[in-house]
Amino acid sequence: MQTRPLAPNSVIGILGGGQLARMLSLAAAPLGYKTCIYCPEDNGPAIDVCHSHIVGDYGDQAKLKQFAAKVDVITYEFENIPASTIAFLNQLITVSPNLKSLQTSQDRLVEKDYLNSVGATTAPYANIATKQDLDNAVRKLGLPAILKTRTMGYDGKGQVGIKTMADMQQAYDLVSNNSSGLDKPNCILEGFINFDLEISVIIARDAAGNVAIFEPSENAHKNHILNSSTIPAQISPDIRAKACQLASDIIHGLDYVGVLGVETFITTNGNTPIIINEIAPRVHNSGHWTQDACYISQFEQHIRAIANLPLGSVARHSDVVMHNLIGDGVALASDYAKQANAKIHLYGKQEIKTGRKMGHVNLLFPLDSLIKT
Amino acid sequence: MQTRPLAPNSVIGILGGGQLARMLSLAAAPLGYKTCIYCPEDNGPAIDVCHSHIVGDYGDQAKLKQFAAKVDVITYEFENIPASTIAFLNQLITVSPNLKSLQTSQDRLVEKDYLNSVGATTAPYANIATKQDLDNAVRKLGLPAILKTRTMGYDGKGQVGIKTMADMQQAYDLVSNNSSGLDKPNCILEGFINFDLEISVIIARDAAGNVAIFEPSENAHKNHILNSSTIPAQISPDIRAKACQLASDIIHGLDYVGVLGVETFITTNGNTPIIINEIAPRVHNSGHWTQDACYISQFEQHIRAIANLPLGSVARHSDVVMHNLIGDGVALASDYAKQANAKIHLYGKQEIKTGRKMGHVNLLFPLDSLIKT
Repeated sequence: MQTRPLAPNSVIGILGGGQLARMLSLAAAPLGYKTCIYCPEDNGPAIDVCHSHIVGDYGDQAKLKQFAAKVDVITYEFENIPASTIAFLNQLITVSPNLKSLQTSQDRLVEKDYLNSVGATTAPYANIATKQDLDNAVRKLGLPAILKTRTMGYDGKGQVGIKTMADMQQAYDLVSNNSSGLDKPNCILEGFINFDLEISVIIARDAAGNVAIFEPSENAHKNHILNSSTIPAQISPDIRAKACQLASDIIHGLDYVGVLGVETFITTNGNTPIIINEIAPRVHNSGHWTQDACYISQFEQHIRAIANLPLGSVARHSDVVMHNLIGDGVALASDYAKQANAKIHLYGKQEIKTGRKMGHVNLLFPLDSLIKT
Repeated sequence: MQTRPLAPNSVIGILGGGQLARMLSLAAAPLGYKTCIYCPEDNGPAIDVCHSHIVGDYGDQAKLKQFAAKVDVITYEFENIPASTIAFLNQLITVSPNLKSLQTSQDRLVEKDYLNSVGATTAPYANIATKQDLDNAVRKLGLPAILKTRTMGYDGKGQVGIKTMADMQQAYDLVSNNSSGLDKPNCILEGFINFDLEISVIIARDAAGNVAIFEPSENAHKNHILNSSTIPAQISPDIRAKACQLASDIIHGLDYVGVLGVETFITTNGNTPIIINEIAPRVHNSGHWTQDACYISQFEQHIRAIANLPLGSVARHSDVVMHNLIGDGVALASDYAKQANAKIHLYGKQEIKTGRKMGHVNLLFPLDSLIKT
């Protein structure tokens, strides 16, 4: 791991060309870095604002080599990049976050095993390779429960909620469709968590092991997609401290470099007030509020971490509510443009699709004005 | 003049590829706009972050046509674009700010005539075509005085300070070298202004005639180049209101659309407390502080104005001191990276030259903490 700061005018390679890569590119420029985007599509949100890009499949080793030769460090915008791609690139150049972090977050079973190994509590869970496994797990964990593919699911995709035994056929189908037939099964059953609220802890770590933690956000979902984040979250100082400590334990255990999103459930009705839902080895939608309410955004923080610059301040000058602009909802942007406290962030996507994240808006409020009493 | 908002994914054309165009591009992206840069150089600060670019001379009509065909509106990053270029493009597509604004600010004589016509006070001045004109003007305005080329000068270039008659030879040389021999002479003599401080008023106007004015900054120069801007400026509410009113009169008279920088001298030793030094028909170095101390930066404000979006709020959440990183001074960026309240903005310039603006840093402080008592 290199520890000298990346010199100005160096090139940061980013795998993936979506909105997270776009906003990473926008944050890299003021630090003096250029970005080179590698993705399979020849257009995309990040390509509008990058210095250069390479169109290639994640398995195309010749193109990946070409990519590695053009850049000074590599990062990625999402956890579904094949681990083999990262392993290949890592032989040529530093990739941050590291392979272990990617692999841990790519597989819900590996992830939950890891989280428990560092002292975090997760939902109860069971590995599901066969219908028989599912039957056994449902008996053990009880209903309601949720069956998920171990890999590749996001925003509610690849999931079946099992409320009653009437939902079992759909669950069996998910198992059948995702069973590899090898010794690595592809589903996990998670016990239902009756949580009061979901918060995110956006945490950064540098190669020297320093960490910096943004104020936790309180998240609200709609159709399994993040709808809004409110900062500060309505949590006690004690819960806040414990959630931050857990995020810290999680990031250190991975020897992680960059920004990590930690989705966390807060409960008041059980023995364990904090349950870790999942981790994302990247900048996270629930951290977009940092762009306008903090001096340093999560995007700049990620670039600083992977470029071996000192981590930036997580100081916050405003309270804020982030709203995602999803699908047709992007039309709201023109209304928000009239609103004095609204900062608009559109992603430059041409085609509007149901459930597609088209942009977000940060609504800013004076510091401490959102705290409910 | 079109007055419908420019649709998301439209392309904004920018003449010039320097740091101002770079920061305009970075501000255009979150509003959903792509930028196309037109400049004579095949690299440059803006090209790192734009969607597309065309390398061409400002006189190349074939390439300018190609540029106009690719974009939905055109703006420019500096006032030394030939007026003929803007006039040509304006036949094809809207250019904001308009030709009158460009021409007014391109020529110090036209500019001073205009400023006086809208009720602003300027330094006393005289048009200088010949050595005889200079002799006469020196007798009339007295010494010290400053001789400047009417066009193309910036950051102290194309100027001769005349403190005593011993400086006259150098002044005669400037007249000789800049006299066109036609009826349009190329120098202006300006009487010396003994001012207390220089402030900038960064003002925006949209096509409907709405204006929005950022908090005036207090500027300090070093070797004729802006060194720092401090916000708020140490001026009385009365002076602040009058300076803002003058900026408003100036921008309305030009039927201006976009952001305008108004450099203003404040004096306590004369009859006229506010003297307008010059105007710049573009985003301005003394407005860079808005990037981090305001919800909406001057760059976003300019994009909003030329895209017919509503002007954004000029609310400020922090006090701030902007320091330019000039020449070797760019090396300070690595120190600033360690400072919690410092926001770094590097321009991606490869070559360090004496006097070259390489970047700037905004040092943020809590609101009202910089007011001296």
